[in-house]
Amino acid sequence: MSKVVAAMSISVDGYVGASDPEQWFPVHNRVHNWVFGLAAWRERQGMTGGQHSVSSDLVADEFTSTGAYVMGRTMFDFGEEPWGEEPPFRAPVFVVTHREREPLHRTGTTFTFVTDGLASAIKQATEAAEGRDVFLSGGASIVQQAIAAGLLDELHLHQTPVLLGTGVRLWDHIGAGWKELEPIRVTPGDGVTHLYYRCVR
Amino acid sequence: MSKVVAAMSISVDGYVGASDPEQWFPVHNRVHNWVFGLAAWRERQGMTGGQHSVSSDLVADEFTSTGAYVMGRTMFDFGEEPWGEEPPFRAPVFVVTHREREPLHRTGTTFTFVTDGLASAIKQATEAAEGRDVFLSGGASIVQQAIAAGLLDELHLHQTPVLLGTGVRLWDHIGAGWKELEPIRVTPGDGVTHLYYRCVR
Repeated sequence: MSKVVAAMSISVDGYVGASDPEQWFPVHNRVHNWVFGLAAWRERQGMTGGQHSVSSDLVADEFTSTGAYVMGRTMFDFGEEPWGEEPPFRAPVFVVTHREREPLHRTGTTFTFVTDGLASAIKQATEAAEGRDVFLSGGASIVQQAIAAGLLDELHLHQTPVLLGTGVRLWDHIGAGWKELEPIRVTPGDGVTHLYYRCVR
Repeated sequence: MSKVVAAMSISVDGYVGASDPEQWFPVHNRVHNWVFGLAAWRERQGMTGGQHSVSSDLVADEFTSTGAYVMGRTMFDFGEEPWGEEPPFRAPVFVVTHREREPLHRTGTTFTFVTDGLASAIKQATEAAEGRDVFLSGGASIVQQAIAAGLLDELHLHQTPVLLGTGVRLWDHIGAGWKELEPIRVTPGDGVTHLYYRCVR
């Protein structure tokens, strides 16, 4: 059964990125630095070597259980050039955007641009995933919309041990009303804590 | 060696209480409900029974390692009456306030009112703790001040699996600049996840 999973690297105080553009790279690197050295992550980027660890195993699990990706337009715009001819997805990607565009074919990946909203993108991704999971890889806005609309089955937080004090909060714009979660994984990693939750629908 | 420890029950989205007074009790109860049934917590309130579990053991550890408490005036005002003649501290308590007041003697506890700020209260509590830990039990404002001023050795988060969407955020007013943490405990409890961090000074 296909699940809809959102995964975010997040500081202990709930920030997933910088709001000040000049802080974009330092904050992005601090929040994600737990992942860059992992064998599973490096393999996806076409590199060899790296650390074999529980964190690497969890990243590998996320890759293998995913049948399709959904992402926001901002994330796609940041990634389109650096991801190059062989993007690290190896599965269909659905980009939520207001701008119509023909599908973009790359090695192992087709980017489909969805202009009728997140729920439609998740629906198309679920069909394309053929029973595997649909993975929301960000940015914050897409994940916030998915939480607010009750579209998530699981929320994977990769919590990095730092207080940033300012930035883009994952927990803004998630809608009114309590949303109960159930812990399904609490795992210490190397420079990160993996907290996986089931979203009670 | 005496440590300065702050412990807070907190939702996954970082709220420790309600900002709307009408929501005070429901939010307080949702965030703290993991603790009410624990044997160690019940014993401190003069009750018997309750659950013996890893969470109860951790609460018992916090009680036994604490030699003195520091709290904010709002928390004291809420507690003064319900705590009654035998408050659950069994150690000196230092209340940070702007209002001078004579020390209040209760069974097992003396409340000392400190009008020259949090750093002074922590200093006095450290002397009174005689080598055991100084425990900041809240509210949010005192813990925020301690984080901003770099006065904490450890931060214990008892994370309850819910998104509240609104309320009093622990992570406001903690000052500019990144503050690195080191995970020292990642423990799944019953209806709560215990995340303990060392504050890198």
